[in-house]
Amino acid sequence: MTDVEQPPTQAAQREAVVDLLGVLAYAELSAFERLASDASLAPALEQQAALGEMAVAEFGHFVTLRDHLAEMGVDPTVAMTPFVAPLDDFHDSTAPADWLEGLVKAYVGDGFASDFYREVAEYVDDAPTRELILAALADTGHAQFVVEQVRAAITADETVAGRLALWARRLMGEALVQAQRVAVDREALTSLVGGGDLVRIGELLARLTARHTERMEKLGLKA
Amino acid sequence: MTDVEQPPTQAAQREAVVDLLGVLAYAELSAFERLASDASLAPALEQQAALGEMAVAEFGHFVTLRDHLAEMGVDPTVAMTPFVAPLDDFHDSTAPADWLEGLVKAYVGDGFASDFYREVAEYVDDAPTRELILAALADTGHAQFVVEQVRAAITADETVAGRLALWARRLMGEALVQAQRVAVDREALTSLVGGGDLVRIGELLARLTARHTERMEKLGLKA
Repeated sequence: MTDVEQPPTQAAQREAVVDLLGVLAYAELSAFERLASDASLAPALEQQAALGEMAVAEFGHFVTLRDHLAEMGVDPTVAMTPFVAPLDDFHDSTAPADWLEGLVKAYVGDGFASDFYREVAEYVDDAPTRELILAALADTGHAQFVVEQVRAAITADETVAGRLALWARRLMGEALVQAQRVAVDREALTSLVGGGDLVRIGELLARLTARHTERMEKLGLKA
Repeated sequence: MTDVEQPPTQAAQREAVVDLLGVLAYAELSAFERLASDASLAPALEQQAALGEMAVAEFGHFVTLRDHLAEMGVDPTVAMTPFVAPLDDFHDSTAPADWLEGLVKAYVGDGFASDFYREVAEYVDDAPTRELILAALADTGHAQFVVEQVRAAITADETVAGRLALWARRLMGEALVQAQRVAVDREALTSLVGGGDLVRIGELLARLTARHTERMEKLGLKA
């Protein structure tokens, strides 16, 4: 450990990229399963189908990332395995109690993850991999659906806003606990992002928090 | 009610076709959710992804059927609603306890449903609708994966075969209970299939049972 930033070696860069693709792939696969399963909380068949479509889009991203790992000569299962426990624990500790909690989780979780991976992709020196990550994070066009549903629920019952704002804070808390765990375990990945530079990590967190606050405002919730 | 077979009127034929598309659409949507959710029972990430792929294929079928209903000028939600309770009850009463039960449910359930809808499609006099139903039932190519997994599990532990054979019988029992319920409630649909002719219904059941037995043999299980 050192405070002086070192340019990563080629091996360390590759290790970090494999980690990044691995965590992203399993994040998409588990998001697919949880979204599909949360769809059963929908109050009507149209919303159930809409959440299903979001889930299928995540599965498509998973396939792209898995196939890219295989093309790099990496076993996708090996790359994903270190991230199964943290992501499963995150989902287990944040199972939505109802449809609105499910929607907020899909929107806040997907948004935050998307911002984070986009930031990390900037540090990937292999252009095709970088582009692949950005494509996997492309807006699936379902965010607007969630915003409309949540705003309508708040208009119908103002007390919903307080409850969902608390829920979103819990989601962020649990996400940070698991991110911390990954950061400690996966040194190459952490170096890729922060390079040992605490100022840079601080700036990254500030940007992510600002964008989270914007998303909460769009939903009509206090961050 | 009469024992004499009457050709269905055009209105009755349309009502039956809407029912058929409605039940099939919701069957695909709920199969998607349950499969995606059962994927978390997988012993390894590769199998988890394979069940995810099966789920995504079901969702694609759902979209095709839903869009066809809309093109016919029918609200897909209205068409699906009468079948939500029977299908949800079926799934709730047959939640797999482990990965192998999940696989057998996917294979036996999907196969039986497929045979049944294929038989019913023969009675649909609108050619594009008939072709659409048959396309939605096309083998997603995942059946072989299930057969291999189940046979390997039986080879590793012979006691598995007895347990899974009992499980498959329970699945069939629950499916027949719900089918019975639908048959009583949806007269137009029942007329389309049986036309009041008990011999024809008996022959249909005999064909479906024979094909179920074949599937069980492929899995290495007693029907």
